[in-house]
Amino acid sequence: MKIVIAPDSFKESLSAPAAAQAIARGVHQAFPGAQTVCIPMADGGEGTVQAVLAATGGQWRETAVRGALGEPRQAGWGWLPDGAAVIEMATAAGLELMPPAERDPMRASSHGVGELVRAALDAGARRIILGLGGSATNDGGAGMLAALGLRLLDEQGAELPPGGAALARLASLDTSGLDPRLRDVQVEVACDVDNPLCGPQGASHVFGPQKGATPEQVLELDRSLARLADVCAAHLSRDLRDTPGAGAAGGLGYAALAFLDAAFRPGVEIVAELGGLEQAMEGAALAFTGEGRMDAQTLRGKTPAGVARIASRAGVPVIALAGSLGEGYDALYGAGITSAFSLASGPMTLQQACQQAEALLADRARDAMRLWMAAARRRL
Amino acid sequence: MKIVIAPDSFKESLSAPAAAQAIARGVHQAFPGAQTVCIPMADGGEGTVQAVLAATGGQWRETAVRGALGEPRQAGWGWLPDGAAVIEMATAAGLELMPPAERDPMRASSHGVGELVRAALDAGARRIILGLGGSATNDGGAGMLAALGLRLLDEQGAELPPGGAALARLASLDTSGLDPRLRDVQVEVACDVDNPLCGPQGASHVFGPQKGATPEQVLELDRSLARLADVCAAHLSRDLRDTPGAGAAGGLGYAALAFLDAAFRPGVEIVAELGGLEQAMEGAALAFTGEGRMDAQTLRGKTPAGVARIASRAGVPVIALAGSLGEGYDALYGAGITSAFSLASGPMTLQQACQQAEALLADRARDAMRLWMAAARRRL
Repeated sequence: MKIVIAPDSFKESLSAPAAAQAIARGVHQAFPGAQTVCIPMADGGEGTVQAVLAATGGQWRETAVRGALGEPRQAGWGWLPDGAAVIEMATAAGLELMPPAERDPMRASSHGVGELVRAALDAGARRIILGLGGSATNDGGAGMLAALGLRLLDEQGAELPPGGAALARLASLDTSGLDPRLRDVQVEVACDVDNPLCGPQGASHVFGPQKGATPEQVLELDRSLARLADVCAAHLSRDLRDTPGAGAAGGLGYAALAFLDAAFRPGVEIVAELGGLEQAMEGAALAFTGEGRMDAQTLRGKTPAGVARIASRAGVPVIALAGSLGEGYDALYGAGITSAFSLASGPMTLQQACQQAEALLADRARDAMRLWMAAARRRL
Repeated sequence: MKIVIAPDSFKESLSAPAAAQAIARGVHQAFPGAQTVCIPMADGGEGTVQAVLAATGGQWRETAVRGALGEPRQAGWGWLPDGAAVIEMATAAGLELMPPAERDPMRASSHGVGELVRAALDAGARRIILGLGGSATNDGGAGMLAALGLRLLDEQGAELPPGGAALARLASLDTSGLDPRLRDVQVEVACDVDNPLCGPQGASHVFGPQKGATPEQVLELDRSLARLADVCAAHLSRDLRDTPGAGAAGGLGYAALAFLDAAFRPGVEIVAELGGLEQAMEGAALAFTGEGRMDAQTLRGKTPAGVARIASRAGVPVIALAGSLGEGYDALYGAGITSAFSLASGPMTLQQACQQAEALLADRARDAMRLWMAAARRRL
């Protein structure tokens, strides 16, 4: 019996590969003869590179970049056997990398992301997969573009300093120095939000506050991004500010659309494709997926929902294991998840659950597998 | 498809009947066509009367008795359609009824238990089921016997005051006043421990400390119970102090053996028999059981183990739902439990779990049932 094991990471406790191994261990305890196929998953956010490398056997690379506030940072990315690069924005300009007190969405820059794209181009990438999510920035991707050779100029023709706030003074663009290799590379952006760049549903209003923006700063940043869009629209003769996803990652989505000709796809689909999840489902009797938390939001592009979609097409039932089952998790039952269980073995603190996550996950996988086996031996 | 639902109570949150209803609700959510048979269970401890009444349709009765320290108390018991009475010792002389500061195993008396036995005899009981467990007493059942007409006398021929400590002065017995109806009633004691009356494995040493006895009091109480056994042995011409279970409930087990000719059985077996669990299992596809906590100790006479034993004989798989799965719970997998799941939907406090127990239990039953159904539609 083939069993596909395709969990996301369990935030703060288990990477996706470690989670897959723990589930496989539990499955084998219940059914030693099971043929388990582990395909660690991610949704384009944190852990995407690690999951893809584990599934494809690619290489981990590191590049020295400028962090969101200009600090030096070693950022990891993935190099795949077929000449594709996988980049997580958050490793170069991530919110989680910064203590709350230091967060500064007015000044934070996506420059490091551009440096990683350049490193991928230097390596000869024909395809770049760029995972958004978890960014500390609200600069419309201006930093990334600057790192790739675009010059953003003020009225006096001087280059703007980094950060979203400075974009208020943007007057013109000089694209002559833009890395020409960008024309020949296929850029795919893993993105699960469809926000526009500006306005009440835009990057600044929706995501600015969680990056530390005050209400006044939100308004200022929103005006800055509108300025960026105005100048770019004039330069490119097309206005992409309302394209769904333009507002992702502090507006970096917009820059990727406008200058990298990026295609947007749900991250879980990209990762599933790279890992061969669809092929693995063929002939499988059962699949496991999982994530740190599952609730009604999980349907919006999270890994368990994506795995369930692919499994459904192949007619494979899916057991989901989550650190926590939140409000509305049973909405997943209409979306291809057969049954969901929490890791918790009883009342416990989050810290206890995280510390014991590996053992708890193996236990729950074993327990669910035992139930599956007992039922499969019977008939309705 | 017939599904038998036979949980114990979930201590501090759900009675056994309420737990059964919650599980049934979850099962019907997953499978509206299920035929559910609810048989609330108990192991002879707290909740036994309630569970048995719910399963048999018997009557709740109340009798005014003396509590463990002589305080007036209304104690409930059950009257079954076939002329049997069900009594929980803990309702008349329970440890949980007393604040820790008031616990006094030297003085605490099982007198109220004897009053309940008398009430059952007054009602015309042909069979009395006496659930031990949870007692505050260490009086060798002397109080119960006194309430039934036995006189416990000192050297001067005066009746002893209540409590275990006074037994040190026991010199003789006067059984002439013992209720003659005891000869014609069948007494079954629901008991899951096999401790002798005296010594290092006896009532005082093993259970005395949790009732508030100091190390010195433990020694004194052990000597008192040995004195009781000496005097009784001389009077009855047989020594029952080492009979397994004599040390149950502060030695009340001994009194039941010696003067009520009681038969000892695991409580879960008695309750299962009264509720018709074995017949219900015939033709069932699946059973649910559950308890507040399951761990390696559950095998020692607790409800889930008893339900699993009966289900196994009928070849019925059992899903167990527990508030908490503790160390070694998987030992149940060798004893007829197919699979066990915790109520917890994620990290939470015990208080949260208790407050939401009904909804959590229904959710877990639904989730497990969904998995069962999906697997049962397939074949290995």
